[in-house]
Amino acid sequence: MTGQKYTIAVIGGTGALGFGLALRWAKAGHGIIIGSRAQDSADRGAERLIALAPEATVTGLENGAAAAAAEIVVLTVPFSNQSPMLEAIKPGCQGKIMVDVTVPLQPPKVRTVHLPEHGSAGKGAQTFLGDGVRVVSAFQNVAADHLTDLEHAIDCDILVCGNDPDAREIVVGLAEDASMRAWHAGRIENSVVSEALTSALIFMNKRYKIAGAGIRITGAPGSAENGDH
Amino acid sequence: MTGQKYTIAVIGGTGALGFGLALRWAKAGHGIIIGSRAQDSADRGAERLIALAPEATVTGLENGAAAAAAEIVVLTVPFSNQSPMLEAIKPGCQGKIMVDVTVPLQPPKVRTVHLPEHGSAGKGAQTFLGDGVRVVSAFQNVAADHLTDLEHAIDCDILVCGNDPDAREIVVGLAEDASMRAWHAGRIENSVVSEALTSALIFMNKRYKIAGAGIRITGAPGSAENGDH
Repeated sequence: MTGQKYTIAVIGGTGALGFGLALRWAKAGHGIIIGSRAQDSADRGAERLIALAPEATVTGLENGAAAAAAEIVVLTVPFSNQSPMLEAIKPGCQGKIMVDVTVPLQPPKVRTVHLPEHGSAGKGAQTFLGDGVRVVSAFQNVAADHLTDLEHAIDCDILVCGNDPDAREIVVGLAEDASMRAWHAGRIENSVVSEALTSALIFMNKRYKIAGAGIRITGAPGSAENGDH
Repeated sequence: MTGQKYTIAVIGGTGALGFGLALRWAKAGHGIIIGSRAQDSADRGAERLIALAPEATVTGLENGAAAAAAEIVVLTVPFSNQSPMLEAIKPGCQGKIMVDVTVPLQPPKVRTVHLPEHGSAGKGAQTFLGDGVRVVSAFQNVAADHLTDLEHAIDCDILVCGNDPDAREIVVGLAEDASMRAWHAGRIENSVVSEALTSALIFMNKRYKIAGAGIRITGAPGSAENGDH
């Protein structure tokens, strides 16, 4: 657990993935704003979270207001909603870190990769939000139901991509606060790796009857004499 | 080790990755044709392989002839050579499995993903070769120097993508013959996962000083009541 605590807006925080992340961060001592399209559903999400994390600071706000009130904004909505959500939160995100968790699945063929415009949803978000927002991509490969089960160890590493190393480092810390192992994985273009991987994992879940496949990075840090190969 | 033995042409078989795969398959009892641009370099590659695997059936041929003489063709050349190599082997590949190992790196920025035309090199190969060739994508994430060191356990799973499940199954078997764990990972479009992952792994090798990072798939096969989620 890192020392610093943030106020984190989880846009789409009433959904399974967003709520799971919010729950883990609330338990770790971060302040949480549950963002939703309407104030009353945001309020209900916040109440649900408070019931599970009574010690936490939790509020509910409409998405745009949630982004504006937060220090870090986390976008956890279906791909079909990414564009309108980005429009809603763009003003509130300026100067901040925006963590994009969007997976560009195209139902019903979710087991085959469909690359979005700009090659990845993360790159698309960075392009749309502009240089005033530090977009970091992460958390696409975690099964939502594993997140909400706090007794369930997350057997999946998190690849953290973004153009700003300091912003990535903060998100690596947020992953660790949520009991996940995370890795700096390069610039925002590299978000295609974890976004596309989700389709392959869904394929494997079906093919091998796995309850939530994930990945681990192998190889021992520090094992290379220099890292330049 | 699967029962069936194949005659495998390794196009670019004098390179580190191709030679490493050829060595492991030769040791597993497959017949190997080392393909190269010129007959004399193919001959030298074959001699080098015979020295390490004297019991194996090994020959050297120019790339086009190598493809024509093989049952399975494996393409292990740098991205910049993929197009001309595909042209050279297209006639010889018809009716066969073509295993594409191409990683679309764009030097010098090899740590950032650059998506090729068609979204992935594997999809590009399938598009160019046509429906008469079953393209299967695999082996992009294995460090070449780990392959040639037969004492070195390969700590990296292989994602096997392609449109034909039977062809994928044969390549899964080839991976197992080379002492690697492999997974069916979906249609050829999904090859973008392992292709792009290579850039992220190179980034991590540098960032964390890892001597050849890889991935493992987590999650227990058969753990889901049904795989449909």
